[in-house]
Amino acid sequence: MQNLISQQLPGTKIGFISSDIDRRADLRSDSGAILTYRQSDSARFIGISGDAVASRDQKPDYDRPFAPAGEVETIFLGLDAGLDPWFAYRANSAVPTLALRPILLGGLLPEVELSRFAQARSLVHWHERHGFCANCGAPTTMQDAGYRRQCPACKAEHFPRTDPVVIMVAMHGGAILLGRQAAWPEGMYSALAGFMEPGETIEQAVIRETWEEAGVRVRDVRYIASQPWPFPASLMIGVHAVAEERSLHVDGNELQDARWFERDEINLMLNRKHPGNLYAANPYAIAHHLIGQAIEHV
Amino acid sequence: MQNLISQQLPGTKIGFISSDIDRRADLRSDSGAILTYRQSDSARFIGISGDAVASRDQKPDYDRPFAPAGEVETIFLGLDAGLDPWFAYRANSAVPTLALRPILLGGLLPEVELSRFAQARSLVHWHERHGFCANCGAPTTMQDAGYRRQCPACKAEHFPRTDPVVIMVAMHGGAILLGRQAAWPEGMYSALAGFMEPGETIEQAVIRETWEEAGVRVRDVRYIASQPWPFPASLMIGVHAVAEERSLHVDGNELQDARWFERDEINLMLNRKHPGNLYAANPYAIAHHLIGQAIEHV
Repeated sequence: MQNLISQQLPGTKIGFISSDIDRRADLRSDSGAILTYRQSDSARFIGISGDAVASRDQKPDYDRPFAPAGEVETIFLGLDAGLDPWFAYRANSAVPTLALRPILLGGLLPEVELSRFAQARSLVHWHERHGFCANCGAPTTMQDAGYRRQCPACKAEHFPRTDPVVIMVAMHGGAILLGRQAAWPEGMYSALAGFMEPGETIEQAVIRETWEEAGVRVRDVRYIASQPWPFPASLMIGVHAVAEERSLHVDGNELQDARWFERDEINLMLNRKHPGNLYAANPYAIAHHLIGQAIEHV
Repeated sequence: MQNLISQQLPGTKIGFISSDIDRRADLRSDSGAILTYRQSDSARFIGISGDAVASRDQKPDYDRPFAPAGEVETIFLGLDAGLDPWFAYRANSAVPTLALRPILLGGLLPEVELSRFAQARSLVHWHERHGFCANCGAPTTMQDAGYRRQCPACKAEHFPRTDPVVIMVAMHGGAILLGRQAAWPEGMYSALAGFMEPGETIEQAVIRETWEEAGVRVRDVRYIASQPWPFPASLMIGVHAVAEERSLHVDGNELQDARWFERDEINLMLNRKHPGNLYAANPYAIAHHLIGQAIEHV
């Protein structure tokens, strides 16, 4: 499906979906094998500090961790296309870093590197925020090369979170529905989105969120593509839907504005040629591609 | 999409997707409104104890909680089609209960009731297992009518988990790939499935899991439908995929067996007429419907 999107929109790249990492989950519980990989000369290390990656000379530094290898906990990401092992670790906040978002925005690194960051960033953040057992409050320990935490007190096991988010473009006649949050850069409009909740389908979540945020009823939800979004660990589930009508009732808490845009205006926004300087998300975001495909259908 | 499945397979019902609850997230932070609903005569309460629902006379008991209303924490599920408010709570383990799985298997309750249970069960379980802050270990408190927990010590906020799972039927020529776990009832085969991990797309997870579990390479992943699975809080993302070949290499840890089945044999399994008493999941599970649709395509 991601290939389909690349083919349909040549020249634009959706972020975080081009990883070459073979995760090799079968090795995670083999601490001997993991240690051998970690000590090998070919091992590569991604240092994560908040939303940034450890760097040297303004480039991500994969070659050496910033602390003695034995003292820093590492997460095994897997083997790359050349069978080199990759690890992630929490970088000391004092090391030089490059922020991930400008790297994304500027297209400063190949997609395959950004995609490794996504896995690294989500897992490091999860460990950072899950040092204690949610079931009993005791400190937990990292297991399975970073894919599990174990509570020595109550024996509970904890696994990394992946939070599904629905992101949707509603269509009606020749127009599509976009919104903007107050915190976004000026002029940016994008697809509506929201976290899924326990006990609902993707289709139900799309209907609920579009109603909650914009007061628009939709049907005929159609899955288009997905994207991991590592801020901190979302799975973006991208869909199109058909609106019952063009009514609007914007929830001022979630959105600052929502509008129905005609195809011609969207084309200008996608290509950054809008006379009012409006634009439609950035190409690394799945929203940009959902919008681009939608205007071929409305 | 769920309607599509119902239409294609009349007489069978997929579980947990027919909720009539309007969640009314806008009310959750309005503690006065929530209290008014809770005290109203029309309020309904679903008591959850493990995998079972509080009952009286062998029927779920929605009319009164089993403890004084003021002492039991309740989760606001939303308003039903008749605008009655629904709540969930953790039932005392001493109350009579009905186990959810036999209710499902036996078709003993209307789908709309089962679907409310899915929301109730996932949320109650999350609170049960998340009484402490994963960030600092301090006890947390329920907020937003059950959709958030707050740490008074480090101020961290915690939100209910929804764990995305890919569930897939791989096809090759006239055959489809099914597997079985050692713990399943004798004769049952179903779609392969696995938890998604941070940093991957749905399509990448399908490719990874099918390779890990059965040694089969797949491509052309196609989304079919989704289902909430409240044991405890999964989102089943159901897909079809095309296998590169019929090779098999079964991972004995995850699966006891996996096989390529021809269309005629699958038809017998779906209709419980297989001469060897094999059968293909149960109709309340999304797997049954993914399999049924797959044999129309292979």
